[in-house]
Amino acid sequence: MSPFEGSAPRTRDWRHLRLVRQDDGVATVTLARPDKLNALTFGAYADLRDLLAELSRERSVRALVLAGEGRGFCSGGDVDEIIGATLAMDAARLLDFNRMTGQVVRAIRECPFPVIAAVHGVAAGAGAVLALAADFRIADPSARFAFLFTRVGLSGGDMGAAYLLPRVVGLGHATRLLMLGDPVRAPEAERIGLISELAEEGRAGDRAAELARRLAAGPALAYAQTKALLTAELDMPLAAAVELDAATQALLMNSADYAEFHAAFTAKRAPLWQGR
Amino acid sequence: MSPFEGSAPRTRDWRHLRLVRQDDGVATVTLARPDKLNALTFGAYADLRDLLAELSRERSVRALVLAGEGRGFCSGGDVDEIIGATLAMDAARLLDFNRMTGQVVRAIRECPFPVIAAVHGVAAGAGAVLALAADFRIADPSARFAFLFTRVGLSGGDMGAAYLLPRVVGLGHATRLLMLGDPVRAPEAERIGLISELAEEGRAGDRAAELARRLAAGPALAYAQTKALLTAELDMPLAAAVELDAATQALLMNSADYAEFHAAFTAKRAPLWQGR
Amino acid sequence: MSPFEGSAPRTRDWRHLRLVRQDDGVATVTLARPDKLNALTFGAYADLRDLLAELSRERSVRALVLAGEGRGFCSGGDVDEIIGATLAMDAARLLDFNRMTGQVVRAIRECPFPVIAAVHGVAAGAGAVLALAADFRIADPSARFAFLFTRVGLSGGDMGAAYLLPRVVGLGHATRLLMLGDPVRAPEAERIGLISELAEEGRAGDRAAELARRLAAGPALAYAQTKALLTAELDMPLAAAVELDAATQALLMNSADYAEFHAAFTAKRAPLWQGR
Repeated sequence: MSPFEGSAPRTRDWRHLRLVRQDDGVATVTLARPDKLNALTFGAYADLRDLLAELSRERSVRALVLAGEGRGFCSGGDVDEIIGATLAMDAARLLDFNRMTGQVVRAIRECPFPVIAAVHGVAAGAGAVLALAADFRIADPSARFAFLFTRVGLSGGDMGAAYLLPRVVGLGHATRLLMLGDPVRAPEAERIGLISELAEEGRAGDRAAELARRLAAGPALAYAQTKALLTAELDMPLAAAVELDAATQALLMNSADYAEFHAAFTAKRAPLWQGR
Repeated sequence: MSPFEGSAPRTRDWRHLRLVRQDDGVATVTLARPDKLNALTFGAYADLRDLLAELSRERSVRALVLAGEGRGFCSGGDVDEIIGATLAMDAARLLDFNRMTGQVVRAIRECPFPVIAAVHGVAAGAGAVLALAADFRIADPSARFAFLFTRVGLSGGDMGAAYLLPRVVGLGHATRLLMLGDPVRAPEAERIGLISELAEEGRAGDRAAELARRLAAGPALAYAQTKALLTAELDMPLAAAVELDAATQALLMNSADYAEFHAAFTAKRAPLWQGR
Repeated sequence: MSPFEGSAPRTRDWRHLRLVRQDDGVATVTLARPDKLNALTFGAYADLRDLLAELSRERSVRALVLAGEGRGFCSGGDVDEIIGATLAMDAARLLDFNRMTGQVVRAIRECPFPVIAAVHGVAAGAGAVLALAADFRIADPSARFAFLFTRVGLSGGDMGAAYLLPRVVGLGHATRLLMLGDPVRAPEAERIGLISELAEEGRAGDRAAELARRLAAGPALAYAQTKALLTAELDMPLAAAVELDAATQALLMNSADYAEFHAAFTAKRAPLWQGR
């Protein structure tokens, strides 16, 4: 994604999620239907897709926290508003819907800033995949992940889950999780590498905010390229990956931040990152 | 694999393994040369390949358990009947043999029902790879896996092991296991993600049967597609995987089982899966 | 890499590292600038690249240990001699440098003998990637790995790290390690699969030498092909991997070592490996 803008206007009002932007470069997106455990609606998927694309055009966002309001992170697609509605859709419309949900995952993987999921309570179905697509998952001990797609008669490969999960926890655990849809509680999630950090109870949000502030204060271009290469090199052979790394580092060795590191190191002071 | 049948007859008598089929959709394949620790013969490889292809054409099989009779799961290729025999083979015949063993692994990965390996005692050489290719590995504490190909002067990459093992336990552990051929006992197998479940002693077979019954009673098409996508998406880039997921879910959202889930959920009863 | 030699002479004197070759087939490469924590220079990168290529042409090297002299393994690229120098380079020269470092990693992955990194103390930046590219990492409890590229304003994808690390420890841990550059101490490295073996304090070098002797005394062709297939099959689909395995085993089933295994097994004696 690229910051160049054409005629398209920006969205003024995100009606299906809550966005808070801070001056320090941290944006927080909160799924805010707590009475429904933040179940996703068609509007919420569309807003997530569009929001990440819009934020990707702005240099001012340097880290994003994704969180849920109330008792849990996200219970997945709404049983009435989504499952019920899809039963009446024709093939073209069903494909449109499922492509949109996949585009949200691609947007999370392809946006230039790190995304940190702060997970407490349930992260189920599409909610589990949103967290899975994030760069970091910080979880409360209360967190439980459930890829429960087969429980509703669907494929466990939803929104890229059958691509991402084996690459995060290995094919054995991924098969078990996607086939059975059983909940994975925080200790197991930590053991198998599904989460980045296990926080103290009630602290996942705070820890995610701390990490976001740290990342937002850091060398943004270096982080963006690290993320882009991690994403791209999952799909590349070694020789090509090494060549991409070489070109990327050659570029970054001309960056202001790299020169700043050397100047700061020589002067024995902390570097002042500019993100370019 | 597809259920359409042409002129080819079915095999009436599997001479190199034992097949038990139950009315509940569970099939059990037992390697049954207990006096030889279920060492594989040319006939056993051929039967495994053909059996999985034949069962894949039948809707009636919904889960398959692979087990070994006697003191262990499978000691691998028979030293006399296979290693001795291959010493006298020409290049074309050697290629034929090694392609056949690889076809067994592909058949396990590509059949439309989940395969559950119930492992007790030794799972060595080709026996370890058969278990590795399964969707689930349930192991007794007595289980030990040994990819001992280099111990006989062969490549650790046998029957897809150098493809599968890094994707299950990571490249570091896979290198150690395939290069050295040292046994991996059940606790380590659990720690590194090589097994799906560690059973109580003597209970792996029962637990595998329980899981098979659960899967056989579930949404068969959803499971089949979950397995197919897990297998296919190891070899696909993210963007293609997300597109495959979208097309698959669009298809399954027209399935009887998806409608049944919604009807059952609305009526607050358990769904009655039909597998289509 | 292939042992055929043309007109190119061999290097007589490796000025930027220390090479010890033993009669038993073990070679040891020591990074030997202990006053600088073995920080890498342009010459050290070039020597590592050239040395691995030269040793790959010799059948006499059957296992290689990579170690660091003094207080740690390797602190990465030298801040003055490399970071300072690159600030004055033009784009073509920067690309040349970064391609060279990537070629070292490719040489480690593509040489026909196993490489064992013996890690004590710090393995930072390029030092961490050198260890990551090895087939085995044996670590002292004092070892700490730090992929600290973003700390100097560069991409965490350096020398193939964004390709290799997710395939060793999974995408979640790899993202955390490459984005943040925080040190990973030996117990965590063991838990997430980053190391092959945790040695007792001060013993990583001895354990690496033991493993190297074991490998050097073993079936060298079988090990070489195991390594080659592990490396190649990360970049291949399952069907192609199974075909490569079949062709490889058909070849090795004509090898002296495979016949020797069978003769030794039949005579109830230990095999005498010739490595061909």
